[in-house]
Amino acid sequence: MLTSEQLSVNEEGHLTIGGVDTVWLAENYQTPLYVMNEDTIRRHCKTFRQSVQQYYGGHGLVCYASKAFCCKEVYRVMTQEQMGVDAVSIGEMYTALSAGFNTEHICLHGNNKTKEELQFALEHGIGRIVVDNLTELSVLNQMATEMKKTPRILLRIKPGIDAHTHDFIRTGQIDSKFGFALETGEALEAVQCALTAKSLRLAGLHCHIGSQIFDVSPFVLAAEVMMDFRAEIRRRFSVELEELNLGGGFGISYTHEDRPVPLEEYMKAVSQALKKKADEHQMSVPFVLLEPGRSIVATAGLTLYRIGARKEIPGIRTYLSLDGGMTDNPRYALYQAKYEAVVANKASLLRDEQVTLAGKCCESGDLLGENMMLQKADAGDLIAVLATGAYNYSMASHYNRIANPAVVMVADGKARVIVKRETLEDLIRNDQ
Amino acid sequence: MLTSEQLSVNEEGHLTIGGVDTVWLAENYQTPLYVMNEDTIRRHCKTFRQSVQQYYGGHGLVCYASKAFCCKEVYRVMTQEQMGVDAVSIGEMYTALSAGFNTEHICLHGNNKTKEELQFALEHGIGRIVVDNLTELSVLNQMATEMKKTPRILLRIKPGIDAHTHDFIRTGQIDSKFGFALETGEALEAVQCALTAKSLRLAGLHCHIGSQIFDVSPFVLAAEVMMDFRAEIRRRFSVELEELNLGGGFGISYTHEDRPVPLEEYMKAVSQALKKKADEHQMSVPFVLLEPGRSIVATAGLTLYRIGARKEIPGIRTYLSLDGGMTDNPRYALYQAKYEAVVANKASLLRDEQVTLAGKCCESGDLLGENMMLQKADAGDLIAVLATGAYNYSMASHYNRIANPAVVMVADGKARVIVKRETLEDLIRNDQ
Repeated sequence: MLTSEQLSVNEEGHLTIGGVDTVWLAENYQTPLYVMNEDTIRRHCKTFRQSVQQYYGGHGLVCYASKAFCCKEVYRVMTQEQMGVDAVSIGEMYTALSAGFNTEHICLHGNNKTKEELQFALEHGIGRIVVDNLTELSVLNQMATEMKKTPRILLRIKPGIDAHTHDFIRTGQIDSKFGFALETGEALEAVQCALTAKSLRLAGLHCHIGSQIFDVSPFVLAAEVMMDFRAEIRRRFSVELEELNLGGGFGISYTHEDRPVPLEEYMKAVSQALKKKADEHQMSVPFVLLEPGRSIVATAGLTLYRIGARKEIPGIRTYLSLDGGMTDNPRYALYQAKYEAVVANKASLLRDEQVTLAGKCCESGDLLGENMMLQKADAGDLIAVLATGAYNYSMASHYNRIANPAVVMVADGKARVIVKRETLEDLIRNDQ
Repeated sequence: MLTSEQLSVNEEGHLTIGGVDTVWLAENYQTPLYVMNEDTIRRHCKTFRQSVQQYYGGHGLVCYASKAFCCKEVYRVMTQEQMGVDAVSIGEMYTALSAGFNTEHICLHGNNKTKEELQFALEHGIGRIVVDNLTELSVLNQMATEMKKTPRILLRIKPGIDAHTHDFIRTGQIDSKFGFALETGEALEAVQCALTAKSLRLAGLHCHIGSQIFDVSPFVLAAEVMMDFRAEIRRRFSVELEELNLGGGFGISYTHEDRPVPLEEYMKAVSQALKKKADEHQMSVPFVLLEPGRSIVATAGLTLYRIGARKEIPGIRTYLSLDGGMTDNPRYALYQAKYEAVVANKASLLRDEQVTLAGKCCESGDLLGENMMLQKADAGDLIAVLATGAYNYSMASHYNRIANPAVVMVADGKARVIVKRETLEDLIRNDQ
């Protein structure tokens, strides 16, 4: 079974997460239920932070990409773990602020930040704003001037690297809605504009080359390309930019087929590349920022569902109908994403049956996985879909007017609700 | 331009919907903004109802499939239009009830209704429950017995018809999570169980053969197959089931490439088939139910966005970055669904530029359309994406913690908010 650091099977044959019985969780908090393991989240934070310490003398900041899983409690954990966070909307900034997160350690992203978002960022002293395009640069400079602020900005650069991953989640190549292209001279023009902008302080550069990347080499290449660009900027403008944000995209293991690189390997390889390039160009090494999201929270989570019906179609397949689905996890519908699952109340049995997990939405595409090997299960049994900590709760919808499940955090063998289950009243709250 | 019955361009060159200036709507209610035209919704309801009247002597009920667009106000309109509704969750039933909709005219669907949903349906006298599988049949019978109720049920049948449509939204064939298969004898077994169940009143059969179907023939075929099955049931069990629910799936025009059949043609063709089969089997014609969703609301809606930035990538493409995207309309990300769009404040100009509409989510796949022909537009201009009335608001997510837009209804040249815009406070309401 995957992510065995946190998952186990107890004497009753029940799956446990962080030492807590999932059958008890389902009975106590109802299903569907998101469960997150705090220890796993913290361990991943520490691994990233320690790798920056060990390989780069601590000259950097690890920023959790909160779009992977955003709620007040996760920002509290990030505060305690001395992490920065990457936010992508006023909603994420507002949530962070509500949880008392230090705005200085927030890095604001987005290909189309609204004026409301920029104003919010300026008012609340958001530590870094990653500027995406010239219109934004100009609007931000004007707003900052009016508000007598001098925000620290980075420029989002497309380094032209095409990391091997799913088409839909590829970024960094020139045909992207994000950032300034290197090849076309657009990036250099943006640097010039930023340097001459009255109320902006250009601190550095940002790039993000993709998602679910299982290889250090594209990260090394990106670091090299960005260091070369940093050298070109020094040559042209006599300015040595302090910061380099290399984004995220570190692959995680959703199924046995995925072979992720140990998290510390990224910083190890990237540190070498940064130092080598600094030597080559006779420059300082930059303060480095990393933005892991999925790799912090994905394997820390699982989702519990109750089976409502078992449907055998002879010679074709067997469906197990769950009480959740694409509304709480749209990743199969969106990307045909693969997951592993376990019959949580029969976790010690052999996984000897091939089944398809069907969600409860009135939509044929509402599946959570096809032809998965599971313990034999029937109506009333519990299914745990693993590694659902990222891009599940955060992407949840109300399709079919289905309420969002609760999120429970387990730590030290105990459980607590960190996001309450939506009520029927919540669903009609804004209806007139 | 599409759906010209409701869209026009005024003297200022602004797009209007139902006689209301979209530029005024955007300024008054902010963007992104869902706009629905009540007149169009009502016209579509009338067309369906009149077709049942004209071709079938009014011996039927048209049930709006509310998963297409669900909020309290739409149920009020359906009440006034003497429509039934199809609901697929406790959330939809609760919304209907909250709007004062008559529960007798609700038809409850779902491949995995929870016990809570079945209990709610029994308690509130939901008019029809479409039973999906034998487990549900047994659970419902037991609950009804305990509650001393005798709900009217239909059985969902897979007629084995493979309507030509997108893979993900195909239903009706034998490999489906929905219903009982005809071929395997499963459907006949379900009829027998339902007829002998103590507390269930088997009123009829239901089938649904797919979505976005542009041809009457699969509907005719489905009607024929279901009538043959109805005859077989009479032969075997000496029971003539009263009702036949033929589901929905009536195609609409998202772009000029779509060639929908006029809505009344479905009932015209199906009526003939039902009468012919009734003659052939010497049976009565059944009370017929239809479940249009998309065809009632899709073209009644549009979504207004403000452009935040224009990004030209020479020789590749031009992106227009919008202040919404996959969070308010995930259909491009899910199905690569095509839409037409207009620069709402420049609607009288020629559409002579090819652009890609990018959403504001931090995800490369967050686009609303690629290589669309639009009026030349820049930051500050308004984009209207057309035919977004179905499966947009109802599928909206909070990805990136982006709040859901407001929904405004226009009628008689006036506008009113029917769903309030979510606030920042709404986003953290359930966070602990």
